[in-house]
Amino acid sequence: MAVSPEISDMLARFTVAIPSWGFSPMGTRFATFLLGDEARDIYGRIDRASEVHQATGITPGLALHFPWDRTDDLGALGRYIHARGLRVEAVNPNTFQDPTYRLGSVAHHDPAVRRQAVEHLLWCVEAQKQLDAPYLSLWFADGTNYPGQADFRRRHEAVLDSLRPVAAALAPGHTMLVEYKPFEPAFYHTDLADWGTALLVCQQLGAQAKVIVDLGHHLQGHNVEFTVALLQHAGRLGGFHLNNRKYADDDLMTGSLDPYGLFLIFRELVKGERLYGRRIESVSYCLDQSANVEAKVPAMILSVMNTQEAFAKALLVDEDALAAAEAEGDVIAAQEVLRAAFLTDVRPMLAEFRRGRGTPEDPLRYHRERMAPARA
Amino acid sequence: MAVSPEISDMLARFTVAIPSWGFSPMGTRFATFLLGDEARDIYGRIDRASEVHQATGITPGLALHFPWDRTDDLGALGRYIHARGLRVEAVNPNTFQDPTYRLGSVAHHDPAVRRQAVEHLLWCVEAQKQLDAPYLSLWFADGTNYPGQADFRRRHEAVLDSLRPVAAALAPGHTMLVEYKPFEPAFYHTDLADWGTALLVCQQLGAQAKVIVDLGHHLQGHNVEFTVALLQHAGRLGGFHLNNRKYADDDLMTGSLDPYGLFLIFRELVKGERLYGRRIESVSYCLDQSANVEAKVPAMILSVMNTQEAFAKALLVDEDALAAAEAEGDVIAAQEVLRAAFLTDVRPMLAEFRRGRGTPEDPLRYHRERMAPARA
Amino acid sequence: MAVSPEISDMLARFTVAIPSWGFSPMGTRFATFLLGDEARDIYGRIDRASEVHQATGITPGLALHFPWDRTDDLGALGRYIHARGLRVEAVNPNTFQDPTYRLGSVAHHDPAVRRQAVEHLLWCVEAQKQLDAPYLSLWFADGTNYPGQADFRRRHEAVLDSLRPVAAALAPGHTMLVEYKPFEPAFYHTDLADWGTALLVCQQLGAQAKVIVDLGHHLQGHNVEFTVALLQHAGRLGGFHLNNRKYADDDLMTGSLDPYGLFLIFRELVKGERLYGRRIESVSYCLDQSANVEAKVPAMILSVMNTQEAFAKALLVDEDALAAAEAEGDVIAAQEVLRAAFLTDVRPMLAEFRRGRGTPEDPLRYHRERMAPARA
Amino acid sequence: MAVSPEISDMLARFTVAIPSWGFSPMGTRFATFLLGDEARDIYGRIDRASEVHQATGITPGLALHFPWDRTDDLGALGRYIHARGLRVEAVNPNTFQDPTYRLGSVAHHDPAVRRQAVEHLLWCVEAQKQLDAPYLSLWFADGTNYPGQADFRRRHEAVLDSLRPVAAALAPGHTMLVEYKPFEPAFYHTDLADWGTALLVCQQLGAQAKVIVDLGHHLQGHNVEFTVALLQHAGRLGGFHLNNRKYADDDLMTGSLDPYGLFLIFRELVKGERLYGRRIESVSYCLDQSANVEAKVPAMILSVMNTQEAFAKALLVDEDALAAAEAEGDVIAAQEVLRAAFLTDVRPMLAEFRRGRGTPEDPLRYHRERMAPARA
Repeated sequence: MAVSPEISDMLARFTVAIPSWGFSPMGTRFATFLLGDEARDIYGRIDRASEVHQATGITPGLALHFPWDRTDDLGALGRYIHARGLRVEAVNPNTFQDPTYRLGSVAHHDPAVRRQAVEHLLWCVEAQKQLDAPYLSLWFADGTNYPGQADFRRRHEAVLDSLRPVAAALAPGHTMLVEYKPFEPAFYHTDLADWGTALLVCQQLGAQAKVIVDLGHHLQGHNVEFTVALLQHAGRLGGFHLNNRKYADDDLMTGSLDPYGLFLIFRELVKGERLYGRRIESVSYCLDQSANVEAKVPAMILSVMNTQEAFAKALLVDEDALAAAEAEGDVIAAQEVLRAAFLTDVRPMLAEFRRGRGTPEDPLRYHRERMAPARA
Repeated sequence: MAVSPEISDMLARFTVAIPSWGFSPMGTRFATFLLGDEARDIYGRIDRASEVHQATGITPGLALHFPWDRTDDLGALGRYIHARGLRVEAVNPNTFQDPTYRLGSVAHHDPAVRRQAVEHLLWCVEAQKQLDAPYLSLWFADGTNYPGQADFRRRHEAVLDSLRPVAAALAPGHTMLVEYKPFEPAFYHTDLADWGTALLVCQQLGAQAKVIVDLGHHLQGHNVEFTVALLQHAGRLGGFHLNNRKYADDDLMTGSLDPYGLFLIFRELVKGERLYGRRIESVSYCLDQSANVEAKVPAMILSVMNTQEAFAKALLVDEDALAAAEAEGDVIAAQEVLRAAFLTDVRPMLAEFRRGRGTPEDPLRYHRERMAPARA
Repeated sequence: MAVSPEISDMLARFTVAIPSWGFSPMGTRFATFLLGDEARDIYGRIDRASEVHQATGITPGLALHFPWDRTDDLGALGRYIHARGLRVEAVNPNTFQDPTYRLGSVAHHDPAVRRQAVEHLLWCVEAQKQLDAPYLSLWFADGTNYPGQADFRRRHEAVLDSLRPVAAALAPGHTMLVEYKPFEPAFYHTDLADWGTALLVCQQLGAQAKVIVDLGHHLQGHNVEFTVALLQHAGRLGGFHLNNRKYADDDLMTGSLDPYGLFLIFRELVKGERLYGRRIESVSYCLDQSANVEAKVPAMILSVMNTQEAFAKALLVDEDALAAAEAEGDVIAAQEVLRAAFLTDVRPMLAEFRRGRGTPEDPLRYHRERMAPARA
Repeated sequence: MAVSPEISDMLARFTVAIPSWGFSPMGTRFATFLLGDEARDIYGRIDRASEVHQATGITPGLALHFPWDRTDDLGALGRYIHARGLRVEAVNPNTFQDPTYRLGSVAHHDPAVRRQAVEHLLWCVEAQKQLDAPYLSLWFADGTNYPGQADFRRRHEAVLDSLRPVAAALAPGHTMLVEYKPFEPAFYHTDLADWGTALLVCQQLGAQAKVIVDLGHHLQGHNVEFTVALLQHAGRLGGFHLNNRKYADDDLMTGSLDPYGLFLIFRELVKGERLYGRRIESVSYCLDQSANVEAKVPAMILSVMNTQEAFAKALLVDEDALAAAEAEGDVIAAQEVLRAAFLTDVRPMLAEFRRGRGTPEDPLRYHRERMAPARA
């Protein structure tokens, strides 16, 4: 399969960030099972992320999570990361574990709790600057479990009040990502329930605030690719948390259950560049999955492969042919164009691309043969 | 039960509009069953709506649907309506039945089709002016059935282009309501999929464009009352299409399956007036249900009763007690406050209210005893 | 790609039936749009099905629907069908359109209505015998729209009472398929709501009654392939109505939105033969889709292609490798096995298979080039 | 409100069991917040349950969970329980926390793991006998997270093989409850996914095996009351885990979000006794909720109150009037009958009932005034 220069160039510009928390023990509310491959500390997590990058060649970015990844010396942390050929893509604050946050953080009714949350957020902005991370990635567990528990509008205003100083503190060129989620851990309402809410908040916070789409944070049936297209068109698409789900926020490996849905999302992003001038690398792509029963490093590698394949298939979509089919109202012809791209086996094309860059042709096999034994 | 002046005043200001199409034969894609109570023409539909108003006393407004309700003489139509003590609340265009609209109307790829749709919309704006209807209520069936069938962003721009001249043509004081719906009759994407999309569109169209919430137009689990509160807070809540559903857009009688959910929505609206100064009558309430197996006029009356009861219970909510519970983080106390309101049997209160206004104490019984025999 | 004899044999045994009603005007409750390719009568529908079979080579079976396909002379109908190289796979009764059936058919509270329905069903059993159709395929619109409308248990007993004589009338070797659906056109409860209900009914009706799975008749998130495996294991899987959906019972082209899900279902069926001795052709596969915006014959052909590709990919799954991965609890290895099958481009393999049987290598292109112009 | 003897008798026969685990620290996968009211050990949990019973008067039954509630001396445990006026209603095994169970328990591919699970289950049967608990309540977290991870049918057979000796070990008169759940903690398939699967399993295990319905264990839209009616009609309804949810298995307070849905379920049970001779107390009612943000004892009391009110309203339904409405096909009349029951404020009736039995008229106020201060 001959790869066109345009496709080759787009493949080269596509990277996926790896979350440090993905190498920590994770589980459900029922149990957390250890497989023995969990990292002990942030340095171990960086090493694991480095293994993923060695295998895939497209994951230089790292997403950190504070305070989980907190160290006394952020400078040393940054140097450790760079020494492994990695960089920090995103800083993720945590305002959902401290007992103070039982009834919320940035939306809490008590100003003292909100202040505590904002201080942590501002600390994270500083960390972002020190680590030169382009993205501050915000997810809040804020919400209520019962009707009447709190006033929606007061909480909404509190979210805005809390985030305004954070947005104002951002370095130029840095982006604040605002994540939404319909439920869990709050089970009646969440203060950032859907993309519309996140958009409303971002509009109040200025141009550096953008929406991040976690693929598992939608009600059943939601057309994610349409939301992606709309947000990008409105200039408010900031990035993705990649994973897969069948039911709720299952946080399974990306592409493991709905590879066609993943393809359709990337098709909108590829079209965003080809037809609307939004460069593919202008948004952040970060894995966010919870490996409850499978080995963590291979799970990351597999998700990266699934993601890259979905992206590669999207690159094969003939937009001219689709435009012609639309102009003629020929739905069948449009289906044929998408089929032609999706049915293509892109593994040879990707193997060639990887060979050309000196990275392993089969990332998962490489990891199994070279690195896994090394650790044992 | 002694009714406070505030409650009495709010009850008096609350009205529900009746849709003319609710008295036409309606069904599913599988069959339309006639019960014999369908109206033959617009005048019959007005007569039916008048029966509902006589029984309930709170439904003077009428929603018309064009071209279904088209007559040669709109002036005569208006006089017929006024002669029955009714007024026109909303004008509803129809751009989904003409064969031209198979692939869309305001979002269609063919400018000629879009023009046809816009011309009809502009005709409806004129009708709105002639009939002095405060609301132009827009719902579009536009969407696609398959990935690749059309370009989301082009269609989104087409929607905006189509609606701009319509918004510009509105009379001062009139409102354009933009409705959203996640699916049906389009089954892959709809151009106005959710409240976020409708909000984006309204923001482009100016202050007279607002979002209308159809209670059945959400994915399963969506917290409708939170959306209502947010939209009102953002100044973009325009009104409601009232009905109930268990699965999709089932268009059942309002309050027939989830009376507590209906109560929670009205509780946000009552709070909107009490705490945030948004008068209860500043948005439109219109039934929109499809009586497939039940008698149509009684179905309307029952929905109005369910709606008024939900509103009345919402009036009983002690917001001070809720605020105190929230300040103390006492979730159980908040539940008790809502329970106290919802568990109250408001039928005596409403009977007293109706007596005081000279309308029937039990609307459904009144209709059964007085009006139904009269027709037979 | 060398095709093993086992795979070649299984490909040869796999057929998909075409529903006559798929060539009639179809739509939603909002509108029915004509594309001009609708057939005028049953003979036109047979001709269309014959076109599909000429293009695909694997669709000799026809599903008829009565009274839609009723003729004075069933013998002549059968001869017309055979003359085109087709056979009748299934007879589908219709007890949902007659005005009598507003509140149900086999579950109706009125014995006279139930009798009318049973008489039609018995007529269909006779037609099944005359046409030598192995399957009687039953779907009922029975259900209620509101709580309290009817007694669930009385209706359940009525269903059993109505179907017992029908089951008793079946010819030896013939199968009665019982279909389930959670909602639409009934919106509160349906008398055959889910596979558990259908199973309960089949258990009462004897060994010739089996469950048919319509891919669109599940609540969001339902794991269809697990249900398929369980039903087959319990000896009660009778067949499939193939289509695709994103939201409700959307009746889109099979495989158009979730090709991986279709693959997973066929993987259970292939495994059913390979590991559990249930021959792939022991159940019925029938398209059941509603082409609202696309051309009907190509839509059928595309669905057949999608289905055959999903089946072909399922044939490539290495069950030994999966069993080994399971025995070692290696989730990642299992994913690699499924990936290896699904990512393979099976179009060359299928082209070779078709060549070997003298049928067109690319069914859709064949239809476009040869047959569509012929009609014009 | 005069209470009829029949209603009074049914109220007196209605009890709700309290789960010991409801007084332990509980949370989500994100955090577990302590409110300070958690019990330290099983004796503290029994004391809490006793408080609930003192307040409500209808909660003498206790559900125990092993090994969480394990003590060296089950006899002493039983005596402690009886001394507080309580009895053991159900014994709940736990085969989901031990690290061994990462890939399942009764369905695990490794016979050694299955044996470990079965041994624990058999131990629980012995505990059930010693504690004279009528119900052994089984819920398994067994399932898979990814397609291909395991063979559905092999696991299904393993479930049956594991449970057969357990069913055989039951004391006469004792019941084994088999619970189903569509997802969580397994996110691709669960081995007991829905009521149909649980029914299939119970049918293999004999007459003492019945299905338990957890109100939160259904996909969105599932008509729970229809399932309840069907299961009871088939002689396989064993009991309930009571809670409420808006999204997934949210485990909120019973009746807190959908009081009408709870009413509809109890209406089927009341009808089951009145029309079909299934005594209301022939199935088990047990709370199963997770108080993440609210005080635990009041949360239990509130759920019991909501449950008793839903039951009381169900007792007010005029079945004769409903039967008449059904016979006439009068959907509106049926709605009026249900409205008449549900809109009635049953608090006075229940206060009178409680007074007559010497228990507090307002359980929650009683607890707040008498017992909560006593602990402080």
